[in-house]
Amino acid sequence: MKYDIIVLGSGPGGYVTAIRASQLGFKTAIVEKENLGGVCLNWGCIPTKALLKSAQVFEYLKHAGDYGLSVKDFDKDFDAVVKRSRNVADGMSKGVQFLMKKNKIDVIEGFGKLKPGKKVDVDGKEYSADNIIIATGARSRELPSLPQDGKKVIGYREAMTLKKQPKKMIVVGSGAIGVEFAYFYNAMGTEVTIVEYLPNIVPVEDEEVSKQLERSFKKSGIKIMTSSEVTKVDTSGSGVKASVKTKKGEEILEADIILSAVGIKSNIENIGLEDVGIVVDKDKILVNDFYQTNIPGYYAIGDVTPGQALAHVASAEGILCVEKLAGQHVEALDYGNIPGCTYCSPEIASVGLTEKQAKDKGLDIKVGKFPFSASGKASASGAKDGFVKVIFDAKYGEWLGCHMIGAGVTDMIAEAVLGRKLETTGHEVLKAVHPHPTMSEAVMEAVADAYDEVIHL
Amino acid sequence: MKYDIIVLGSGPGGYVTAIRASQLGFKTAIVEKENLGGVCLNWGCIPTKALLKSAQVFEYLKHAGDYGLSVKDFDKDFDAVVKRSRNVADGMSKGVQFLMKKNKIDVIEGFGKLKPGKKVDVDGKEYSADNIIIATGARSRELPSLPQDGKKVIGYREAMTLKKQPKKMIVVGSGAIGVEFAYFYNAMGTEVTIVEYLPNIVPVEDEEVSKQLERSFKKSGIKIMTSSEVTKVDTSGSGVKASVKTKKGEEILEADIILSAVGIKSNIENIGLEDVGIVVDKDKILVNDFYQTNIPGYYAIGDVTPGQALAHVASAEGILCVEKLAGQHVEALDYGNIPGCTYCSPEIASVGLTEKQAKDKGLDIKVGKFPFSASGKASASGAKDGFVKVIFDAKYGEWLGCHMIGAGVTDMIAEAVLGRKLETTGHEVLKAVHPHPTMSEAVMEAVADAYDEVIHL
Repeated sequence: MKYDIIVLGSGPGGYVTAIRASQLGFKTAIVEKENLGGVCLNWGCIPTKALLKSAQVFEYLKHAGDYGLSVKDFDKDFDAVVKRSRNVADGMSKGVQFLMKKNKIDVIEGFGKLKPGKKVDVDGKEYSADNIIIATGARSRELPSLPQDGKKVIGYREAMTLKKQPKKMIVVGSGAIGVEFAYFYNAMGTEVTIVEYLPNIVPVEDEEVSKQLERSFKKSGIKIMTSSEVTKVDTSGSGVKASVKTKKGEEILEADIILSAVGIKSNIENIGLEDVGIVVDKDKILVNDFYQTNIPGYYAIGDVTPGQALAHVASAEGILCVEKLAGQHVEALDYGNIPGCTYCSPEIASVGLTEKQAKDKGLDIKVGKFPFSASGKASASGAKDGFVKVIFDAKYGEWLGCHMIGAGVTDMIAEAVLGRKLETTGHEVLKAVHPHPTMSEAVMEAVADAYDEVIHL
Repeated sequence: MKYDIIVLGSGPGGYVTAIRASQLGFKTAIVEKENLGGVCLNWGCIPTKALLKSAQVFEYLKHAGDYGLSVKDFDKDFDAVVKRSRNVADGMSKGVQFLMKKNKIDVIEGFGKLKPGKKVDVDGKEYSADNIIIATGARSRELPSLPQDGKKVIGYREAMTLKKQPKKMIVVGSGAIGVEFAYFYNAMGTEVTIVEYLPNIVPVEDEEVSKQLERSFKKSGIKIMTSSEVTKVDTSGSGVKASVKTKKGEEILEADIILSAVGIKSNIENIGLEDVGIVVDKDKILVNDFYQTNIPGYYAIGDVTPGQALAHVASAEGILCVEKLAGQHVEALDYGNIPGCTYCSPEIASVGLTEKQAKDKGLDIKVGKFPFSASGKASASGAKDGFVKVIFDAKYGEWLGCHMIGAGVTDMIAEAVLGRKLETTGHEVLKAVHPHPTMSEAVMEAVADAYDEVIHL
């Protein structure tokens, strides 16, 4: 079979690329070894959000009295919570199946391997294409000191389908995945300890965001050990013992399960990169602005390439890649304007430079901050934790960064992304009338604070 | 006492104006006859959002099973729900008190009456100022056929402090206030019937939004009578009987209480407008682009002026008014870019032209729509009702309107407001990377739909 485009991998990079390719008139096939939708739909973004929603509702049950309601007898059914999450994921995967059919994309089931001459071998059967797009994604990274056995030392994938809720859990790593599971399990009643190597949890975020999350997490009972490292794990007993090196010396933590959430590893093994001669550096396939590898006709997008390993980045890259192939005039993706979201409670959303990054660049900045404790909507909703922080260039007024922590902020960051894309100034954000009473007013007020015009502080 | 600026009324128009005035260096006083914060803080936006939050949590209790949770014994405590709402309002009002003090604004308690010569009489004591700003707001409008007795026929103010939850309620009028109370009381277990004079509920919204809300409300058990009018009310019995003229003839509805939510009436009586000679037309004080009345030194903002009667409009007008007085170069408010929000469930948020308005103007348009049923985040959250609809000018790409109905959309409309202010094109919204998985992706997808590039449909 000969195609215009074959996409390897059907995650949010691959399947979105295939749909856009088909829209643009390319005869398109997609190769998938497991479930359509990849990790994001089946083992990542979507099922975790379902778990987190159950946790949120469970929190409401626990705190019903705060809202003038009473609940005498309530419980969670851990199996049912997991089952709901699986059902949501399955539904979404079926949705992708439908989209493939609707867009006349051939789905080739099996393990795809690149061959020279723009060919792909899928379990012994060969397909060729004018252009091949590698979108094989990534998986949980394993640390040598923390090998995953899938039972007592697990990755995100096992963490969302445990048969039994652990009583005690250690979460190693506090990026988005780590803190989302820490929040979920703590809300469900598991005793959770986070071990983070760096001095702050959610270390890619602005330091004030990290500190706020740390306060909120500690208030909700999560133990946090920063500047700490798991050096050894003993799984010989009934549970698991972790040796943790802290600033104060070594500590032994006991738990039922350790979740390793220390980042990801690209899926670049055994897919034929060497046969074709595609250049890889530091676990990533090197590509140009429009995702072409060093070998003509071979492209790569998503987690296997150097940009942020996020679903929305993979989708955007894939769309640009095929639009460029279609001869459209497209601009390269601005990796400085990619939002990042973490869906624990309080939620975190950010885009652009942190205060420290801006200062390290030697920029003269104006910083504004508005706490949700001063927001009428937040008071009415009982969601006063958190704030919006904005950073502007003092001289040119450029919106350098926006950092949010609080209820619903993952849906609020889009304003900052669009504003920054359109090169807004602070004054324009300030004069865009934000509806009252909403959490989004905090963006306007934070900007006002940067310019000493804040009203509600 | 002599001030630079005296503000009459301390609602979200008045108190925000006073704070901005003080920031700009004006010696400022504010006159309030009742509670600082006016209707919005004490009897409107804020306490209703508190009630609605309790209703939302109560819905979660009722549907806990959908999230893998079980609740056997639960109830609402209507008094406690109302009390929480009052506490939130009182807290916010105290917050305004604090802000007045912090900004060195004199609070003059009493009923203010304008006098010629830039004077204000407050219960017999006279104050003068270089500039007087009228921000006395509005109250519930009474229909001749539906006189409010405050007991069986009530306005919004009584509706948020009822001593006893009614078993049956008729809500007359289905603007934001009407549908918010209809949702709240229905969620709490009251049998609710909405009577709307026009053919659609939430009649200022895009017709598809109205239809969606009607479906959602009917599903949740609210009865809806459109193209219907209450012609007579009989309160002589134990409850209340309303004669409703429908297209099919007259119908008699019985209930415990009727809530009249048929709009508002400006507070322009007995405040001395006639003494000063300030021109009023159709219940509104006429002002120029910077809120000056026909009499020099007298200004008016908020619900007493012709713009949309919304808290955020009043605040924005007041800020512009005093910035202009301070000699700042300010642009007149763009009343075509004011968002409107309704906080029932599903929420509604919109800005700009509806599809019908755009067509009535003879514009050649592109319309895009993305339903939350196709959104991964909505599926994970169990919030699949609703959609985002966008309208673009086909020729120039101008973003004419954005209409949203669904969970959390009141916090999502800010993106459209800022985008429209910055004169974005659809293509720019599309290429602003929205984070996955969020409800905000629906904005990007709706825009993509308008340009036949939608991925997930």
